[in-house]
Amino acid sequence: MLFSQVLTTYKEPRMERPIFKPIGTPTEQLDTPSLIVDVDALEHNISTVAEFFESNSAKLRPHVESHRTPAIAHKQLAGGGHVGGIAVSSIGQAEVFVPNGFNDVFVANLVVTPQKITRLCALARQARIGVAVDSPSNVADLSEAAVANGVCLDVAVYVNTRLGLYGVEPGRPAVDLAKAVVDAPGLDFAGIMTQEGSILSDDDESRSAIQPLLDTRQDIESAGIAVRVVSAGNTSNYQVVGAIDGVTEVPAGTYALLDAQHAPHLPHLKTAGRVMSTVTSRPEPGYMITDGGQKAIGADTGFPSIDNLPDPTVKGLSAEHGSIYFDASDGADPQLGEKIWCTPWDAATCANLHDYIFAVRNDALEAVWEVSARGRYR
Amino acid sequence: MLFSQVLTTYKEPRMERPIFKPIGTPTEQLDTPSLIVDVDALEHNISTVAEFFESNSAKLRPHVESHRTPAIAHKQLAGGGHVGGIAVSSIGQAEVFVPNGFNDVFVANLVVTPQKITRLCALARQARIGVAVDSPSNVADLSEAAVANGVCLDVAVYVNTRLGLYGVEPGRPAVDLAKAVVDAPGLDFAGIMTQEGSILSDDDESRSAIQPLLDTRQDIESAGIAVRVVSAGNTSNYQVVGAIDGVTEVPAGTYALLDAQHAPHLPHLKTAGRVMSTVTSRPEPGYMITDGGQKAIGADTGFPSIDNLPDPTVKGLSAEHGSIYFDASDGADPQLGEKIWCTPWDAATCANLHDYIFAVRNDALEAVWEVSARGRYR
Repeated sequence: MLFSQVLTTYKEPRMERPIFKPIGTPTEQLDTPSLIVDVDALEHNISTVAEFFESNSAKLRPHVESHRTPAIAHKQLAGGGHVGGIAVSSIGQAEVFVPNGFNDVFVANLVVTPQKITRLCALARQARIGVAVDSPSNVADLSEAAVANGVCLDVAVYVNTRLGLYGVEPGRPAVDLAKAVVDAPGLDFAGIMTQEGSILSDDDESRSAIQPLLDTRQDIESAGIAVRVVSAGNTSNYQVVGAIDGVTEVPAGTYALLDAQHAPHLPHLKTAGRVMSTVTSRPEPGYMITDGGQKAIGADTGFPSIDNLPDPTVKGLSAEHGSIYFDASDGADPQLGEKIWCTPWDAATCANLHDYIFAVRNDALEAVWEVSARGRYR
Repeated sequence: MLFSQVLTTYKEPRMERPIFKPIGTPTEQLDTPSLIVDVDALEHNISTVAEFFESNSAKLRPHVESHRTPAIAHKQLAGGGHVGGIAVSSIGQAEVFVPNGFNDVFVANLVVTPQKITRLCALARQARIGVAVDSPSNVADLSEAAVANGVCLDVAVYVNTRLGLYGVEPGRPAVDLAKAVVDAPGLDFAGIMTQEGSILSDDDESRSAIQPLLDTRQDIESAGIAVRVVSAGNTSNYQVVGAIDGVTEVPAGTYALLDAQHAPHLPHLKTAGRVMSTVTSRPEPGYMITDGGQKAIGADTGFPSIDNLPDPTVKGLSAEHGSIYFDASDGADPQLGEKIWCTPWDAATCANLHDYIFAVRNDALEAVWEVSARGRYR
């Protein structure tokens, strides 16, 4: 059974104590600040994206770094349109998801130290494990460890297309590295991948970012090597990249919860994950302080959007406080204790700050999901 | 015994699995990215600041939000020069520190919802608990709950001086609120506090920021009300504010670990808390990718400084990666697997991302400390 709705019991007194509200509790009675997921909106997003991939040759590989929550990943796989596995961004995440029922996990990252490579090989005894490479010395290290541990690793060559963070150059360098993988015992050459950055709302921009990857596929196949996987795209451009002939999988993940950064570009999806905070101070008309700050929402890359205030402007987030201006000219005057809804700018940063997600439907608590891979950056 | 060195045993398989290195392990063999504290540097910072407060009338109230770690807070109290208690920024933090041996805890924040006020009263049965107020309705709510629960809460009037985040205005509004606290059963008027923002390196700026608080103290005492506590200052200006006649306590905390934001202003302290990361990709000369990104270091308010590279510039932090330029003209060429040391811009944001701190002395692991109040923002 791929779909499993995980109801976390109160097993760890150190976490989230002292109050777990009973299932059925009205949302506004939950403590704040909390990460609250509207299950109807989440299921809308999952089925909408699954439907797209059902009708295209490229398939989805849900990238779970954006929520780190097995309960949500199981829903994504249950939705269809996927390759049968997930993508993660660290071995620590893979170590959480494999025992939670995921048996095809691609670590979309470089793994270079001996102890991390050992962990990768240990996982490969339990599930199909992929990893990215961008250097011949890393290929040699992975191969040696795979052989020593009697396992086989799927390996994808990480090609540097647009973003330029890392990866080998398209064309010849990628072909040479693919050959090195093919020749290395213990490694199975899976194909090639790229990452183009987080937001590519311009369709032509996405196509031109992907083209070097498609050209590289041809180069590698011309060298007599089969390329099974061509991975590219993300939530922001899944409709463009997922329809490009030659792309086989799209590691999108943010579409599940969505966030303030992506929502304007994807009006057919819903902001399913939001932080509920509380007004704690009202120093002046049109200005409020809430209990939702950086530690509950995240501010690494941008401020949250605010749902239920007229003309809101987030002035800033300190460690534990949000500072929000709003239009008080129509008499808006939220009292101490009233709830304010914030859509985080970056869902992944936000989810990583929470131990649990409170899943609600029709404004009542339906389940508490553990963010099991929170903090698993190693 | 105030001092206790906490050696956390491997009791929770979900956290930090799978590898806890043995005590004595050389630092560079610890997994990355890790928050590593040099105990010698930590003790230097603690004794240096304690010595200052020993010889001034104002005393220290260590603000533990900056590290969230009982092991460090116990060292701070063992160091001397303090009021006998700590400051926290949320009830969730107080709920961690009280059972860890702290019996005088000031929640330097507003607590307004019924469920949080209930938690505050429950704590007040176990320890001396203080809280801040900035509105008469909150005073009434706290009083009602304290009486109903048979406890007494210390209450400080939060005065808005310079930063303007929240708080009552100095002078008459503060006097009126102090009177309301004095008249409220179940509440003990402790005094007044302010927060002036995070960095005030200019001495005159600090003095002028504090002056309205000192004037307000006089106003309240002229109204016949004793003011026991006048709390102001932080790590950035502790030497100025802590020497001002009339200030009774300084809630400083960042001095313990220090961070890249404060270090330039406090050359007599050491950067004791740093993130060790690993080079995972070397796309070009003078450029590297590490495994230390936002999720391990934090980037809410600024980028980390880098210790062991020539002329380093942090280009950016993505979720799990650091992008760092450096001067390769002298032949610097870090290999895959080499360690890079990053001092976070904001120690508090960084500590909040880690479940454990690896405490090292003379480059060997001496203890593993739990960041027990990580994520306790509620």
